[in-house]
Amino acid sequence: MPPTTGDPLPSWNEGPAKEAIFAYIARITDVGSPDFLPLPERIAVFDNDGTLWPEHPLPFQAAFAIDELSSRIPREPDLAADPMVQAALAGDLAKLLEGPGYEGLLQILALTHAGMSVDAFRRTVEAWLVSARHPRFDRPYDSLTYLPMQELLRYLQANNFKNFIVSGGGVDFMRVWVERVYGIPPEQVVGSTARTTFELGAAGPVLTKTLDYLFVNDKGGKPVGIHQFIGRRPTLCCGNSDGDHEMLQYTTINNPRPSLGLLVHHTDPEREYAYAAKSTSTGKLVEALAAAPSHGWCVVDMKEDWNMIFARE
Amino acid sequence: MPPTTGDPLPSWNEGPAKEAIFAYIARITDVGSPDFLPLPERIAVFDNDGTLWPEHPLPFQAAFAIDELSSRIPREPDLAADPMVQAALAGDLAKLLEGPGYEGLLQILALTHAGMSVDAFRRTVEAWLVSARHPRFDRPYDSLTYLPMQELLRYLQANNFKNFIVSGGGVDFMRVWVERVYGIPPEQVVGSTARTTFELGAAGPVLTKTLDYLFVNDKGGKPVGIHQFIGRRPTLCCGNSDGDHEMLQYTTINNPRPSLGLLVHHTDPEREYAYAAKSTSTGKLVEALAAAPSHGWCVVDMKEDWNMIFARE
Repeated sequence: MPPTTGDPLPSWNEGPAKEAIFAYIARITDVGSPDFLPLPERIAVFDNDGTLWPEHPLPFQAAFAIDELSSRIPREPDLAADPMVQAALAGDLAKLLEGPGYEGLLQILALTHAGMSVDAFRRTVEAWLVSARHPRFDRPYDSLTYLPMQELLRYLQANNFKNFIVSGGGVDFMRVWVERVYGIPPEQVVGSTARTTFELGAAGPVLTKTLDYLFVNDKGGKPVGIHQFIGRRPTLCCGNSDGDHEMLQYTTINNPRPSLGLLVHHTDPEREYAYAAKSTSTGKLVEALAAAPSHGWCVVDMKEDWNMIFARE
Repeated sequence: MPPTTGDPLPSWNEGPAKEAIFAYIARITDVGSPDFLPLPERIAVFDNDGTLWPEHPLPFQAAFAIDELSSRIPREPDLAADPMVQAALAGDLAKLLEGPGYEGLLQILALTHAGMSVDAFRRTVEAWLVSARHPRFDRPYDSLTYLPMQELLRYLQANNFKNFIVSGGGVDFMRVWVERVYGIPPEQVVGSTARTTFELGAAGPVLTKTLDYLFVNDKGGKPVGIHQFIGRRPTLCCGNSDGDHEMLQYTTINNPRPSLGLLVHHTDPEREYAYAAKSTSTGKLVEALAAAPSHGWCVVDMKEDWNMIFARE
């Protein structure tokens, strides 16, 4: 157990970002103030890729899909003949994103994220997390969550916030590990999703993953997903890219409750990555960064604001 | 505050249903037992219509839609010319359910549940709950929740269960009142749903209700909805009709965790209604009732098992 006194955000340097967080919590927890936020309305939403863990050189879920294809090729030689599998293995994202319907990407998703039971998919992700290593940091992917953000999640929880992940990532991929890694239960994860089919088989109920009714929880889809899955407006939002812009707007603009918007800015090429407009992966940040000052969104400068990036192994 | 000792289910008569509930809770809360259920896995799912409140003479949401159309006709005379509106006002459900795509019902839903902002819809439902009265009981609809089920919800919550509503009803309709009426927060409601569209207007963010990507959370849709919105298998399930059959199967059949299935059987024409195969509204119960003995589902006989149906006004 951490001590109940002392700094709840020790990995954050003193500065405007840390001050903004403390000021917001002081404001909404003051029982005598009109800004007091009733406990059930303490809803915080966090993007995942680039906000709670890195998204370079590739989003970790894309690394999973590629590793999964590689490991299956010896048993399923037809896979190697598929031009979209070849593009994925070569890291040719541009090829996968060609065409109006992103046919290549959907083909890779169909091969790696659909057509199996939800239990089989979960076991595949669990096995990958045990064996795979991030190419630069040489650590298991799920050990690479940002320590300052872990502290922020715990600090909010201690102040009676319900933390939700609201990510463009696939919900079945994230729910495998979020409870263990963030202390966030599966029912507090909103992500990209598609329908399953239900059958009662000889061994019991089986839910099979499909790509039908695919919902992409990104950009304008994030407020839509928040409304559909959570059903009320958040008061705290943390993102890192233009994919989080609408979620920041929904949380903070003309919200009758006091709100806080945070944007993690990747500025640290030594310890993590530096990118914004020039991202070589996902995570481009242009519009939301430009809009931040006028809406009072707090920009977290990774290099300046964080004295640690990852927990020691 | 209720006393912390004494019977947590005073509206339940002594008998097999009450015993089954107590036996299940004793079994899963015994820390030394292999059947101990870890707190995060204490997920209970409840159907709403017919399980937590009546669904006769019509589901309350259908009563809302009809009342809403009636009140709008003076301002919108074209509505009265619509044959589907006429069918709805005449209570002709058969007409609304004609055709492969239930075109009539969708027309009524489009008129009363889509094309407006989520805030405008919420205000309409709030106003209806204040003014409308149930035709038989002459009380506000939201005062008609079953007292024994309210006690069960509180008893489960006291035993660290997270209670979810998993209903065929529309999620935006239920989320208006569930927190006040059941103590269940909006984010713990799974229901029929469709996408909204997001726009940043002059007065802030606006989510507009549509009928696109309509998801009907009934029958085989219930396990699909549970997986999509909650992301793990429940251990306690309570329903009352064949629409809950698959949800009961998903909760109890070959579940590695100890589970309990409950079926509310409407057997009390004096105090509520008696129906099963012969329902004149929704709530037909044939297959799930026949399957109950072989799966150990506990059938709650309203007449025998409940000494009160509704709380006194």
